[in-house]
Order: sequence, then structure tokens, then C-alpha cells
Amino acid sequence: MLTPADVAAARDRIRGHIRTTPLLQADTASLHRDSPPHADAAATVWLKLEQLQHTGSFKARGAYNRILAAAADGQLTEAGVVAASGGNAGLAVAHAAARQGVPARVYVPETAPAVKQAKLADLGATVVAIGTKYADAYDAATADVAETGALFCHAYDQPEICAGQGTLGAELLEQTGGVDTILVAVGGGGLLAGIAAATEGRAHVVGVEPQTIPTLHTALAEGTPVDVDVSGVAADSLGATRLGEIAHGVATRTGVSSVLVDDADIVAARTLLWREYRIAVEHGTAAAPAALLAGAYRPVAGERVAVVLCGANTDLSDLV
Amino acid sequence: MLTPADVAAARDRIRGHIRTTPLLQADTASLHRDSPPHADAAATVWLKLEQLQHTGSFKARGAYNRILAAAADGQLTEAGVVAASGGNAGLAVAHAAARQGVPARVYVPETAPAVKQAKLADLGATVVAIGTKYADAYDAATADVAETGALFCHAYDQPEICAGQGTLGAELLEQTGGVDTILVAVGGGGLLAGIAAATEGRAHVVGVEPQTIPTLHTALAEGTPVDVDVSGVAADSLGATRLGEIAHGVATRTGVSSVLVDDADIVAARTLLWREYRIAVEHGTAAAPAALLAGAYRPVAGERVAVVLCGANTDLSDLV
Repeated sequence: MLTPADVAAARDRIRGHIRTTPLLQADTASLHRDSPPHADAAATVWLKLEQLQHTGSFKARGAYNRILAAAADGQLTEAGVVAASGGNAGLAVAHAAARQGVPARVYVPETAPAVKQAKLADLGATVVAIGTKYADAYDAATADVAETGALFCHAYDQPEICAGQGTLGAELLEQTGGVDTILVAVGGGGLLAGIAAATEGRAHVVGVEPQTIPTLHTALAEGTPVDVDVSGVAADSLGATRLGEIAHGVATRTGVSSVLVDDADIVAARTLLWREYRIAVEHGTAAAPAALLAGAYRPVAGERVAVVLCGANTDLSDLV
Repeated sequence: MLTPADVAAARDRIRGHIRTTPLLQADTASLHRDSPPHADAAATVWLKLEQLQHTGSFKARGAYNRILAAAADGQLTEAGVVAASGGNAGLAVAHAAARQGVPARVYVPETAPAVKQAKLADLGATVVAIGTKYADAYDAATADVAETGALFCHAYDQPEICAGQGTLGAELLEQTGGVDTILVAVGGGGLLAGIAAATEGRAHVVGVEPQTIPTLHTALAEGTPVDVDVSGVAADSLGATRLGEIAHGVATRTGVSSVLVDDADIVAARTLLWREYRIAVEHGTAAAPAALLAGAYRPVAGERVAVVLCGANTDLSDLV
């Protein structure tokens, strides 16, 4: 049961290790497809610039919390840490491990792009490419942990990971003096879980997902996390096949809402963020502002809305 | 004589029209080529994220101040506003004019890239391409103003333009609670002049220029602005041929320092900002952090340094 106290403990633990990322107040009308005047234009919208975090995503918060908590408990041995991820979670674990001076092994499928494997290696991780599917890398990672006693850093479904991600929510409340609504993209739900726990009773959290990867939407509809098909432009960062158990528990308890956006809106929102704000994000991140752009989430007049921009590990070549 | 009071008046005038751009505290060691521990690592470095401003640069501040001041004085007629710039100044004037509902004519040389002309047109400006050199566009713009009575918006050397840019300095002092040193890139010197006036007696302003376009350096050495040759990677944004008279006056009065950086350091700093911070900026902007990277400016332990990231109108295709 992830609580605000877990997040507060994480915040104390990782202070000084992660960046406090700034807010930018948006020109609300710019985030809508409809021409102003528009009812939504009377809302206040903050962009939380978490893409400026170490390794370009919020994942650094959870990685530091997991590793520092283990170190404090004496669970961190010379076997180091292990992750299974060719994406943001792997980068974050590699970075945090290097800063803490412990070895990291990151398992990725052999199909992971060479540029991503190179970035992991640049951060000092040992990259192990194995199998053709993510599940192969995951299985190899858990086998490593079983054999060596290394610390496994899950991409989203561990309490310390979720609590670390939740520090973003606590930080956001402090910076804004309070918001009504937080829009956040959902993959496995680690960030959603952390933010919802951190802001329970103080803000309404809306999980935004591509229609092509509805892990949260399906879990809420079915009453339990179930596997979904994964496809679409945001699959590289939001491509978990099912919602984490922790996220499902917190989402149910705190009354998280779910909205879906289509790929065209995600692409449009990503382009808009560059053209209007000179902010470059990955497609998965663009799902959150896409909910405003497409009208999938419509704030009321006076509503204070925060949109989490959670990652920027993206190919810039199509942004003009 | 540009004063803090001029900047304060500009700030009141443009409030609500421009974005308050956030700060990000840098990992000081990351901004140095030398491995830590390094004396500079004991400094506090803030990045002022002005590249998030309307139209992607600080120029919006001056454009709004110039246009709103003229409107208040009854100087804004149906003839509208005129600028000579294929770059950031033109974009800012086009944007501010459109928001104020007045026509804008932006003169550019016929050699200005089609993509830049298209962006001006997208903002609602009438683009007039004429001649082969910037001076041809400038002459045509001043002829337009003489004939039509339109409001001329200079790229840097007008009091309202400089005072508007200076609001960045006043904002920065408020946000940080005070800094010792401000590093800012210099082209014609409008931003330098404004910041130095805004922070006179409260911070030391360091103008950073490419070695290939030393307008400030040469003006300080010669005792007056003189023409310099213009070349190098930052010429598209810092390519003024000489320092403005206002900038020279303020720089001399307030004791602005000058440092030079070479193109390789500018390129390295721009790459570093993307890799370490996921911040995309233009080469001219990267001159400011390049001064830290190259050691051209070395803070002392405990020094509070702000680095102004002033623009992001850049081709992203070479950032990986």
C-alpha cells in the first residue's frame, strides 16, 4: 500500500541526487485545437518539465530511491544492480548506479537499437543483449539476480520505484501551491502510482494512454491488470504489456481517471510543444498534453492543471 | 542612458504578454571539461531557460515593450510595425504585432532561408525579401518607415528594445534571490545592455562572444563600437556587425566584462546541453555555457552564476 509517507521518505532519501525540475506556465489556448475563446482557456495550465531530469526522464527518481534505500538497508552488494530495459528505466538505473559507484547490468533484447545500447554503455553499464523479446531480457535479468544476489530494479512495479517517481508529485504540489488536476502519461504505471499516492486527497490524477496501449484503461474496466496488445508511436516508452499491481492498487484507492488519445493527437502534441515552447519530448510524454489538445480531458474555468512532461529520449530529426 | 527604472517600466508594461521563464539548477561539474573535483564545482550555476520564451528567444520581451510603449503613446498607426531581420528579432516582432492586432512587415535579404521566411509568414507577417545583404533589407525597412509612418523595431539598438530584454535580468534576480555573475551571449548587445542596466550594482555581467564575431570585445578595446567581420557557427543569431551604441554605453558604465569562445567550444556546449539536460538551443545561445565549459570564465567557490539560454531557433537534426 503506497502512501504519502512512502513518498515523503523517498523525497528525503533522494534529495540532492535528483534535479528539482521547473514549471512553465502554458498559454492555455495554445494547447487546444479549437480556436480561442474556449472554455478551457480560463484554466491555468502548468507544464512540469521533468524531461530535464537526469537521463532525460522521471525514471531517475525511482532508480535513486531503490538503490539508496537498498544501500541503507545493507542490501547492496558488490553484485551491484540489475535492470531489464532498453529504454528510460535502464538509462536511469545505469546513471544512478554509476553515481553510487556500484556496477549495473542492463538486460535488453537483441533487437534493442544500437544507439540505445551505446547510451547505456556510455553511462557505465554492462549491456547484456539476449533473446528477441523484452520477456527474454526480463527472464535473464531475474536469473542474474537469483544467481548473484544483485539488486533488481523493476521498471515500474516495486514500492521504492513507485515512491521515487511520486516525489515528482510532491515537488509539484510545493511548486504550484496546489493544483486540482494532474495529467500524466501511463505505461506500466509507476509514475502514475507515485503521483497519485503523493497527492492523494489533494489533486485528481488523470492517466493518459495511447488507444493502442490501454493498460490503465483496461485494468480499471476489468478490475485487475490484464495483458494488452502494444503498438503505436509511443510504444518505445509506454510499451508495458500490463499495468503494475501497485499502480492498480493506488489508482483504485485514490480514484484515478483514465483517458485515451490516438496517435495522431500524440504526434500533434509533440510537434506543438516544440513549435510553441521549444520543448522536445518523446512521443509517450506527448500523450499527456495530447489529452488537452484533443479535448479528451477538458478543464473547467479556473481549474489548475499540471501536465507532466516526463521524458525526452527521442529522435529529434522529425521536429521542425 | 538605460536605467533600472526603464527596465522596471518595461516589466510592468509587458507583464502578462511574455512568459516568465524558469530556472534549472545545473550540476556544476557537468558544465566543465575538466574532471571533478574542480574548484568551479563549488559554484552554484543556474540555467535561465529563456529559450522557452514566445517564438523561442528573449527577443519577444523587447518586441512587446517597443510595440506596447508605442501604442500607449499613440505612435502605433494602421501602418503597423516594421523590422529588418530573418532571425529571432523578426519572429518576435511578427508575433507581438499579431497578438496586438497590428500588421507587421519584416524585411529580409533574398538569401534568407525559405524555412525562416515561412515561419515569419506563419506568424502573420508580410515578408519582404529584397537584395542580397542584410543591409539591403535594413535600408528597405527604413524607407518603408519613412514613407508609411510605421513603427520601426530595431533588432537591438533602441531604448525600448533594450529595456524589454532587460526584464530577463530583473526576473532572474527575483527568481534566484540574487546572483553574483550573469553570463550572456552577445550579438548586437540588446540583451546585454538590458540585463546590465537591470542588475547594475547587483551582479557582474559577462558578455560571451564567438572569437569570430567579437563586437563587444572590439568595442571595449577600441573605446567605441566598430565593424567586425562576421563568421562562424553562431553567425545566424549573433551576426551583428557591430555593438549597438546603447549596449556600449551601458557596458562601459556598469563594468561589463568580455570573454571569447571558439566555435568548437560552442558546438560542444550545445551538444552537452542536449545530452545532459535535454535542452535544445541554437549555437549563439551555446556561447554562454561554452565560457564555463572552456574555462574562459571560471567561477570561484561559492559564486552564484546564472547562464542565460537565450534562444532555441535551431535545426535539431544534428543533436543526438
